Amino acid sequence: MLAVLNYIERPKLKEPIIVAGLPGIAHIGKLAVEYLVHELQAKKFAELYSEHFPEWVVREDGLAKPLKVDFYSCRPDGIERDIILATADAQAASSFGQYKLTGEILDVAVDNGADTIVTMAAYVLSSRESRAPVVGTATDAESARMLRVHKIELLDGGMIVGMNGLFVGLAGARGLKGFCLLGATQGGLLDVGATEEVLKALARVLGFKLDLADLQTYASIVSRFKPPKLRTPMAVEEDISYIR
Amino acid sequence: MLAVLNYIERPKLKEPIIVAGLPGIAHIGKLAVEYLVHELQAKKFAELYSEHFPEWVVREDGLAKPLKVDFYSCRPDGIERDIILATADAQAASSFGQYKLTGEILDVAVDNGADTIVTMAAYVLSSRESRAPVVGTATDAESARMLRVHKIELLDGGMIVGMNGLFVGLAGARGLKGFCLLGATQGGLLDVGATEEVLKALARVLGFKLDLADLQTYASIVSRFKPPKLRTPMAVEEDISYIR
Amino acid sequence: MLAVLNYIERPKLKEPIIVAGLPGIAHIGKLAVEYLVHELQAKKFAELYSEHFPEWVVREDGLAKPLKVDFYSCRPDGIERDIILATADAQAASSFGQYKLTGEILDVAVDNGADTIVTMAAYVLSSRESRAPVVGTATDAESARMLRVHKIELLDGGMIVGMNGLFVGLAGARGLKGFCLLGATQGGLLDVGATEEVLKALARVLGFKLDLADLQTYASIVSRFKPPKLRTPMAVEEDISYIR
Amino acid sequence: MLAVLNYIERPKLKEPIIVAGLPGIAHIGKLAVEYLVHELQAKKFAELYSEHFPEWVVREDGLAKPLKVDFYSCRPDGIERDIILATADAQAASSFGQYKLTGEILDVAVDNGADTIVTMAAYVLSSRESRAPVVGTATDAESARMLRVHKIELLDGGMIVGMNGLFVGLAGARGLKGFCLLGATQGGLLDVGATEEVLKALARVLGFKLDLADLQTYASIVSRFKPPKLRTPMAVEEDISYIR
Repeated sequence: MLAVLNYIERPKLKEPIIVAGLPGIAHIGKLAVEYLVHELQAKKFAELYSEHFPEWVVREDGLAKPLKVDFYSCRPDGIERDIILATADAQAASSFGQYKLTGEILDVAVDNGADTIVTMAAYVLSSRESRAPVVGTATDAESARMLRVHKIELLDGGMIVGMNGLFVGLAGARGLKGFCLLGATQGGLLDVGATEEVLKALARVLGFKLDLADLQTYASIVSRFKPPKLRTPMAVEEDISYIR
Repeated sequence: MLAVLNYIERPKLKEPIIVAGLPGIAHIGKLAVEYLVHELQAKKFAELYSEHFPEWVVREDGLAKPLKVDFYSCRPDGIERDIILATADAQAASSFGQYKLTGEILDVAVDNGADTIVTMAAYVLSSRESRAPVVGTATDAESARMLRVHKIELLDGGMIVGMNGLFVGLAGARGLKGFCLLGATQGGLLDVGATEEVLKALARVLGFKLDLADLQTYASIVSRFKPPKLRTPMAVEEDISYIR
Repeated sequence: MLAVLNYIERPKLKEPIIVAGLPGIAHIGKLAVEYLVHELQAKKFAELYSEHFPEWVVREDGLAKPLKVDFYSCRPDGIERDIILATADAQAASSFGQYKLTGEILDVAVDNGADTIVTMAAYVLSSRESRAPVVGTATDAESARMLRVHKIELLDGGMIVGMNGLFVGLAGARGLKGFCLLGATQGGLLDVGATEEVLKALARVLGFKLDLADLQTYASIVSRFKPPKLRTPMAVEEDISYIR
Repeated sequence: MLAVLNYIERPKLKEPIIVAGLPGIAHIGKLAVEYLVHELQAKKFAELYSEHFPEWVVREDGLAKPLKVDFYSCRPDGIERDIILATADAQAASSFGQYKLTGEILDVAVDNGADTIVTMAAYVLSSRESRAPVVGTATDAESARMLRVHKIELLDGGMIVGMNGLFVGLAGARGLKGFCLLGATQGGLLDVGATEEVLKALARVLGFKLDLADLQTYASIVSRFKPPKLRTPMAVEEDISYIR
């Protein structure tokens, strides 16, 4: 296996948009997608395992599971299109793996008919910087125009590191439409306020109804955003001679 | 070569269970398997070489040998099934390698008829944490139930890092049954007490007889659990100009 | 995708020379190529995407774009050959990737008829070292002779680290002609003076006319030579127990 | 290219033994092979380029060359077999690369008829350790016996890190004979005395005549054992905001 895609069921989707959020700074993208799954009662239809993930397993429903990408589908009130929601337990373990895993997720999106991709991520403010709560970047001129119509300030510089940005960049290189919404944050493990702003902007741009009343409560009970504390695999003894 | 599997002899095994323990924190898994090989007089039937190991060689029987996975078989008193024991000189050198090498070991297990996999590892206690001496996690609901029947507390969170956990996770993703027994430890290079608890639990769950009287003595004479002290490959001179 | 080459148009080039400069110490190579594109009004004809780049995307013309190599063509006054200019947003993320990406760029050069390759880079002076402002190294004896004719001092030792050097080295191993011009610098993020010296030497050796009056102004308005500040992907919580 | 082997000429060799020494601690293996090339007037017959090397180029004969393995042949006085000498500019850049590059060198040896491989390396003494000046390790029982006959103490533990050890280990796994001679050293950049001891032992075991009178002088004029001083590819600016 390099990547294994297990379909729980093969969904029939109408002009789907994929909305993805991978774990990252302040877990904005991941919390946003997890909350959408919860609030929109999205149904999981596929799991993607990949050897490009870090070498961890996570406990889920009492069992040890390999890291994976979960794909869900839903039809929120207010729009006539389906949404594929995608999130993962972790980003890939290497920069090369980030490209491969992003490509694998894009393949699933395209195979299921998606021509528009959206990601959510964090915009980390520098010490004295002030910003709109949500900024954006797009894959193409038409998507950029749409963000401007919805009063999303477009980023005027900087880079986006990791899969949430790569997803948009590689989608554009494949000719797909899409954009990334970035919540301004000071960083840290979890920024619920920034996530709320990003979700508000997402619902506004895509035109669906979203009740955010439960977000704070939901965030407080979700415990699996915690990365493992990594140590070196083996303690090293003091006085072994070695050879080269 | 990416991986080379050398059969010393091709065993005929009855409904084998594979029990694996790779080097890791406190060497619980590795010491446990090494002791089982010793105590159950298991017979080596295969060696697996892989390019995913670290770039070391080890001395064995007076010779320099590449790092490898050793496979043994035995039939302990008390059960009507064979056990394949597997351990290695090291875990793989990269996270990608951990996935590949774990997959290669699983292939050997499945090729020899195993449908159940068991690993042993360490559960590192945080500073004021108190736990049962052995906790577990399973690949599937049925195996989880079996652990509960044998009074093994199931892990309620956290992650397992490295091949001992990956082995269980990837086995589950392939539809195999199995579980991981984790000995609570403070860490360090070798925890014989925690290893004893894990072995007791293993024998109880699988239903075979195991004499642990020799474990302490055995652990004290086994010298090859020591990782090399690594230095940078070359000393660096002080005053060379360089270019980029 | 491992590498994707998108032709904007397929150029017809006369005996082209490729002149490349990747980001590196003091950004000498990259600034030099960017200025040549600007001053010689070179036309972009291809973009090369590669999974060997770091996992970033960059903003360009309001959009998020994957890191890429840009290829331009021009015919400067004074020579009867075309020049392919090549630069990239970053060097590759790993040493293996540096070899792969360099090979991919060389493939584009050769596919478009180039038999001569030139790179520009930095020569970092050690504390009390004094040097000519530009030194060189060549792929073959004939190119070395040509540099000497133009009074470029050849390097008498040391190594060149990264793609600007690898490009010349691998070109030579393929039987191509070429050389690398290195501007003496103290290092830092951007050395405009050293870049000017390298460009003067380049124009002299290749025999084309180049107006350097705008270089200082051009360098001050180009803002995209800034690498992202990298942090670890996720904040790590203080008190999680972990397992191996 | 992953690896490219260029034959300068295809040699006809009689029962060749390959003697290899890669750069490592105290450069014992590399200096030993370089001196053998010089003293035995060995003739280069092949160069092996590989993408698993670090991303450097080296100056050689006034030109920039990719890192490579050089293969030479010679027939020293006193034996009726040919010797292939092999050394390289560097070891591979990753542990996976070490396996691949070692395998590529072994392929060249086997393709040219070698069934015996020898490497030379350093044994780094711990602070109060005392040892014979040369110790050894073998690929097989017969080679081990031969070392004992020549009064080479066999290593009784420890590991060998890097390609000089891997070479012996992987050769043994392929069924080839051979051994590694390790010079006891305190480490550092270059240990000429330890190299002399290793060369004496090599000539004694293989039974050829070797004049070591020039070694000290030769070592003092060879300047290319110096690794580059590595810095991060780009300086990082202080106040850029970043995103993930």
